Amino acid sequence: MENKNMALLCDFYEFTMSNGYFKNGFYKQNVYFDVFFRKVPDNGGFAIAAGLEQVVDYIKNLHFNESDIEYLQGKGIFDGDFLSYLRNFRFSGDIYAVPEGTPVFPNEPIMTVKAPAIEAQLIETFVLLTLNHQTLIATKANRIVRAAQGRAVIEFGSRRAQGTNGAVDGARAAYIGGCVGTACTLTDKLYGVPAGGTMAHSWIQMFDSEYDAFKAFCELYPDNPTLLVDTYNTLKSGVPNAIKVFKEVLLPQGKTECAIRLDSGDISYLSKKARKMLDEAGLMNCKITASNALDEYLIRDLMMQGAEIDTFGVGERLITSSSSPVFGGVYKLVAVENEGGEIVPKIKVSENTAKITNPHFKKVYRYFDNESGKALADELCVYDEVVDSSNPHTIFDSNATWKTKTLADFTARELLVPIFKNGECVYESPSIQKIAEYCKEQIDLLWDEVKRFENPHTYYVDLSKKLYEIKNILLNVYGV
Amino acid sequence: MENKNMALLCDFYEFTMSNGYFKNGFYKQNVYFDVFFRKVPDNGGFAIAAGLEQVVDYIKNLHFNESDIEYLQGKGIFDGDFLSYLRNFRFSGDIYAVPEGTPVFPNEPIMTVKAPAIEAQLIETFVLLTLNHQTLIATKANRIVRAAQGRAVIEFGSRRAQGTNGAVDGARAAYIGGCVGTACTLTDKLYGVPAGGTMAHSWIQMFDSEYDAFKAFCELYPDNPTLLVDTYNTLKSGVPNAIKVFKEVLLPQGKTECAIRLDSGDISYLSKKARKMLDEAGLMNCKITASNALDEYLIRDLMMQGAEIDTFGVGERLITSSSSPVFGGVYKLVAVENEGGEIVPKIKVSENTAKITNPHFKKVYRYFDNESGKALADELCVYDEVVDSSNPHTIFDSNATWKTKTLADFTARELLVPIFKNGECVYESPSIQKIAEYCKEQIDLLWDEVKRFENPHTYYVDLSKKLYEIKNILLNVYGV
Repeated sequence: MENKNMALLCDFYEFTMSNGYFKNGFYKQNVYFDVFFRKVPDNGGFAIAAGLEQVVDYIKNLHFNESDIEYLQGKGIFDGDFLSYLRNFRFSGDIYAVPEGTPVFPNEPIMTVKAPAIEAQLIETFVLLTLNHQTLIATKANRIVRAAQGRAVIEFGSRRAQGTNGAVDGARAAYIGGCVGTACTLTDKLYGVPAGGTMAHSWIQMFDSEYDAFKAFCELYPDNPTLLVDTYNTLKSGVPNAIKVFKEVLLPQGKTECAIRLDSGDISYLSKKARKMLDEAGLMNCKITASNALDEYLIRDLMMQGAEIDTFGVGERLITSSSSPVFGGVYKLVAVENEGGEIVPKIKVSENTAKITNPHFKKVYRYFDNESGKALADELCVYDEVVDSSNPHTIFDSNATWKTKTLADFTARELLVPIFKNGECVYESPSIQKIAEYCKEQIDLLWDEVKRFENPHTYYVDLSKKLYEIKNILLNVYGV
Repeated sequence: MENKNMALLCDFYEFTMSNGYFKNGFYKQNVYFDVFFRKVPDNGGFAIAAGLEQVVDYIKNLHFNESDIEYLQGKGIFDGDFLSYLRNFRFSGDIYAVPEGTPVFPNEPIMTVKAPAIEAQLIETFVLLTLNHQTLIATKANRIVRAAQGRAVIEFGSRRAQGTNGAVDGARAAYIGGCVGTACTLTDKLYGVPAGGTMAHSWIQMFDSEYDAFKAFCELYPDNPTLLVDTYNTLKSGVPNAIKVFKEVLLPQGKTECAIRLDSGDISYLSKKARKMLDEAGLMNCKITASNALDEYLIRDLMMQGAEIDTFGVGERLITSSSSPVFGGVYKLVAVENEGGEIVPKIKVSENTAKITNPHFKKVYRYFDNESGKALADELCVYDEVVDSSNPHTIFDSNATWKTKTLADFTARELLVPIFKNGECVYESPSIQKIAEYCKEQIDLLWDEVKRFENPHTYYVDLSKKLYEIKNILLNVYGV
């Protein structure tokens, strides 16, 4: 039983700073933080936002219990009044975020937090880790699903996940990214992601023979059983025994739905040989599942080779996004409210120009071409700007301002939607099935060029003229 | 608040198989499973076992609550008697494991489970994921700590971890591997790993100037404050402001302990320049901390370049083991007990010879040279073998049986210790500090050749003559 208050899943410096804000009178001052990322994992063209539902749950329940306060008190550096303040802490701010399943791009806010400084600071670690983790896995899952070109992909990786939550919420994110199911039972119970699974090698080893093991299994589960055929020798023993048992146990019951699973050896070769053996035995409805350290690159190759695989079981390389296991979302101060309630934009300059932030409280528009339906570009605007799609609208590349494009017949959609208002949740998370459907629809609205694996087209994320000018003024003030 | 029963953090096929064992009368039959791995991450010479304490907690508390049973019932494939059995489920078996912090090598059991088939099967997923995760991170942390050659390494990665548990238990594992602390507050509260941290860029941005921000911080925390100096310009602004504030606020109080943190730019160059500036200002006690996507390779290079860094803060590349993010521990059936109580060894053959298992209920000896104290080799023996170190003992390489070595003046230590006996925990987990000390001691007993990063010497993990013969007999029976 895990029973841990997550309020202390927080970098220690958030407390050091918050105590300082408390002492320095900043704690009632509203600030604005953006969550955004700079690079898509695996050099892909886009990421899939995920993890919002878990952030919402966390914020709703966020409080410090007596043992948390006692722990902090024991550090001997925190003010008594600050600890009293924490005792009654509830999040009171506003949060805007892109819905889960939305394709997102570098340098645009996927969440904006407006809250008193301490509150905004204390949620940073959990918000980042949750969005970073699930966005990473949803993005990876989607790559793998795209490589499989319509064949089913099932998430199999709990045992190699980075911790319990990596397994459970990772499988949730994989479903958002397009997997059709998981092996993780708890993810099914908690989130409704369909769990399935049949047998390990140990099942085969428990019986006197592979044939006995298969027979016992099919007698118990005659509805669409999957038999693991590589314990001894796939083609000489596993497939022939599976065929024998399917014929003896299933066919007499009028059942033809079944499958075999290949888990070692040359999957391409074995799948073609096995398909032939199954077809020759009249088992055309028998599906072939493949597992064994698969990822989008291996699946793409298997597809190119014409491997006869109906379902891919993908484990460690999906659940850890092993070829690119970090999603680098950051949480940066973009504005503060002064005493008069005016929003003052802030910038973080850096010797590394890629690390310079886009200042201010912003909104994000995504523009769609009305003819093709496809997404054309995103534009970051100042919070009070309104784009009227009934007039032509010109956007420009902020790194090469002479590159402009005028949109005529287009639709503008705001990506950030209200999640919390004055500490109250105003958003209802859709079902996981709805999120996965929405994700698929939205990805269909991206051009193929953005979706390819090698050198994808860089989707435009532009700044409005107003925002561009504010950024330049700040750079001239703070740049050194 | 996380409040989840972890019993369903279990691959669905464990339930499918368990239900089958129940129906086929195997559920009282004792079986033996080994946890072992085949390859060290990052092509290293050894791994550091970790995660046992969390496995112990899980096994102690493992049960299925009514909502778990209801969920399983809803699947419509499980026998009512099996579900009743689960309602009263408690683990009743024996577990042996290597203590946390022990250096371990490929193909030797790091845990052995002896239990009725269903029990052994239902714990597989959680046991593997917990040992795989923490062993991965402890191993990676130890590589980074060794690269730092005695300079302190602090774990900083929560926001980029793969989920909440990846952060919290990952920081625990990093401490076992040699980190001196973490930024994760919850890991301190739960496990006693010292947490620390001072300020983010947002602290600086909240004030009218960097100087004001530094001053407010040092006035609040005059005991060993660390100032982040790269918000605007490290050498032109950050370091001079830090020096000014240290002199104005700390020195008059007679305090000289302080630090600066470099988080961007060329860390090697900046650290040397900053060191010179600090020394010239008489701040010889001011330490320099560096962060920014570090790992063992970058730290090794920084050390070679004579970077003036006292403490390394390591984030995403440690907490995800990003260059090698999967630890491939497996859980394989090695023996079953027949009705007469006899232990019958089992083998899993494979077309891939590296995947052939070492059969039987085993013990693992580690042999130490009495003169140097160093570890010479490990030997896997059948459970009832006893090695008498008062006599010379000959070991041989099972892949090249003509390669033998006779140990004369040596000490033999059994690596696997009893953790559970008949379902009762018989092991008390040491404090995290004791585990980290033990780890350091044990690594000191490995030859340097095993510890190098590139092409480490392959430490010997041999089979006893008796075990080797049993394996060969089984290969002749089951090999196809």
